Amino acid sequence: MTKKQAFHVAVVGATGAVGEQMLKTLENRNFPIGKLTLLSSKRSAGKKLVFKGEEFTIQEATPESFEGVDIALFSAGGSVSLELAPEAAKRGAIVVDNTSAFRMDANTPLVVPEVNEKDLLEHNGIIANPNCSTIQMVVALEPIRQAYGLGRVIVSTYQAVSGAGVTAIEELKTQAQAMLNGETPEANILPVKALDKHYPIAFNAIPQIDKFTDNGFTYEEMKMINETKKIMHMPELEVAATCVRLPVVSGHSESVYIEVEQDGVTVEDLRTLLASAEGVVLQDNPAEQLYPTPLDATGKNEVFVGRIRKDLNNDKGFHLWVVSDNLLKGAAWNSVQIAERLVKLGLV
Amino acid sequence: MTKKQAFHVAVVGATGAVGEQMLKTLENRNFPIGKLTLLSSKRSAGKKLVFKGEEFTIQEATPESFEGVDIALFSAGGSVSLELAPEAAKRGAIVVDNTSAFRMDANTPLVVPEVNEKDLLEHNGIIANPNCSTIQMVVALEPIRQAYGLGRVIVSTYQAVSGAGVTAIEELKTQAQAMLNGETPEANILPVKALDKHYPIAFNAIPQIDKFTDNGFTYEEMKMINETKKIMHMPELEVAATCVRLPVVSGHSESVYIEVEQDGVTVEDLRTLLASAEGVVLQDNPAEQLYPTPLDATGKNEVFVGRIRKDLNNDKGFHLWVVSDNLLKGAAWNSVQIAERLVKLGLV
Repeated sequence: MTKKQAFHVAVVGATGAVGEQMLKTLENRNFPIGKLTLLSSKRSAGKKLVFKGEEFTIQEATPESFEGVDIALFSAGGSVSLELAPEAAKRGAIVVDNTSAFRMDANTPLVVPEVNEKDLLEHNGIIANPNCSTIQMVVALEPIRQAYGLGRVIVSTYQAVSGAGVTAIEELKTQAQAMLNGETPEANILPVKALDKHYPIAFNAIPQIDKFTDNGFTYEEMKMINETKKIMHMPELEVAATCVRLPVVSGHSESVYIEVEQDGVTVEDLRTLLASAEGVVLQDNPAEQLYPTPLDATGKNEVFVGRIRKDLNNDKGFHLWVVSDNLLKGAAWNSVQIAERLVKLGLV
Repeated sequence: MTKKQAFHVAVVGATGAVGEQMLKTLENRNFPIGKLTLLSSKRSAGKKLVFKGEEFTIQEATPESFEGVDIALFSAGGSVSLELAPEAAKRGAIVVDNTSAFRMDANTPLVVPEVNEKDLLEHNGIIANPNCSTIQMVVALEPIRQAYGLGRVIVSTYQAVSGAGVTAIEELKTQAQAMLNGETPEANILPVKALDKHYPIAFNAIPQIDKFTDNGFTYEEMKMINETKKIMHMPELEVAATCVRLPVVSGHSESVYIEVEQDGVTVEDLRTLLASAEGVVLQDNPAEQLYPTPLDATGKNEVFVGRIRKDLNNDKGFHLWVVSDNLLKGAAWNSVQIAERLVKLGLV
């Protein structure tokens, strides 16, 4: 059997904030596309998008849309994935799903290529792309785990509105302009559009991302906790998360406290390790005020790490500041990267 | 000796962001002022300000300015306090100093009235007002320490630009407008005006507040660590901090992880405790999406606490979200509150 040289790729949710970045990333990476099918809900069907100079009309996604598709990148919400990802897989496509629908399913690998590429070998037609805030954290933590062990993680996030979609970006900008004009901002989208209560995000911080679960943590926080354990294959890892939305357009930041298992690890050890870690860019020099910020990380694929400090009370404790573009490594780039690895591993 | 009914109050740094709030707070609290003297650097001398409908001309602060002054509220930078606070004290004034100049001085009490009012009795003419981010945290933690003990604190902050003064507020607004217009923002103030490198704060997050110390923590982070131990009289307390500046005008937020000493404490125990704690307003109801935000806290004197959760791995671990107006409880209100307590205790 000769190896395929080009693939039929479908993008589901092509008009969303992540879908747009998926197309840009496929273009930038020159992904070997033989045929491209752009799909969406009924509402967006008929719209036109340009890919590599060629115009494509978006079609409504149905089970039949996936006939002949090799790779289907889903980012159109959990309910669309729940309904159509199995249909796509049934028709022979490998699905890379950016929603939370299958992430904790025991039969679905949850993959960040720098961390657990080998889990791709166990796929059953669907591969889940983790939550944005989880991805960037595990990329920074995996090299540390491998070298020194990892016993504990406490993270507080600083998350951009683009994680909540195009309408949240618009709301931030509209509110910011209103407040600069001295007007009272209107809030209709954040923290969760479907819920009753909305808070302004411009010049504010909202300590709620996604709905609340019964234990008082939000789903976003539980995603970080559960997905981290699954991706790192450490069900026993102690992870805690507090997730906060900021008036930032793109780029999630994370203040991460970790405890390693080995004694005597130094800040220089971690810097040396992370400076050569896959997918990581070390930006850590206090003397030159060098550290990552979300504005600087926007548009880049890597995970940026800085502010590495040893805890003053615990020799095994360290503090890190981890930043990445939530639409790229947190979503579109991680999905396309998975697709690239599927090709490299001969799985598609 | 008859008790004084009204006091000669001097405000040093009357034109700054905190000075302005000090005057508003003295007015709102109807503080018993017999005579008011407004002082500043040479640069701002001659400017006029209105207090309770009366116009005051700001005078240049000199040692002689403090003759006859009962209470001097300082907020004009550390170097002004270092030079003039001892001069004021020598002339019989009690200084409440909002800068970091004397905070860690062993002979100077560092006071948050809800926590360590009794330390006022030990004053030697100068009382230090703690760092804004420290104040709101200890107000929330002290009732917990009293009831259940406190063994560990790990905090990540979400701090407003007003902590860096009026020019930082202006810079945020100018940058935000430029970026909304599609222009590239100019950065000249944050994170630290006197340093070489400046980052835009609009639609960004900067993980540096104040300069870096030799251990990789910033001075702001070390203030939170050292001041918390001093105020709570717990030199052994394990405190760690990561301080981050946000595009928020007013209101600092904090994601705080704590470990209590007692077993079996519940979230409801903490809620009940904080609901009746001095200076605290509990805003914690996930079912109603109730939690504090900096926009809601702006203009209010209290410390707002929400998002109380028990750690999923540690029975003694809890997560809290603590918000307060950094110019009020974090600065002006805490200073005026100290002045009120001095009066109440007959110390002035």
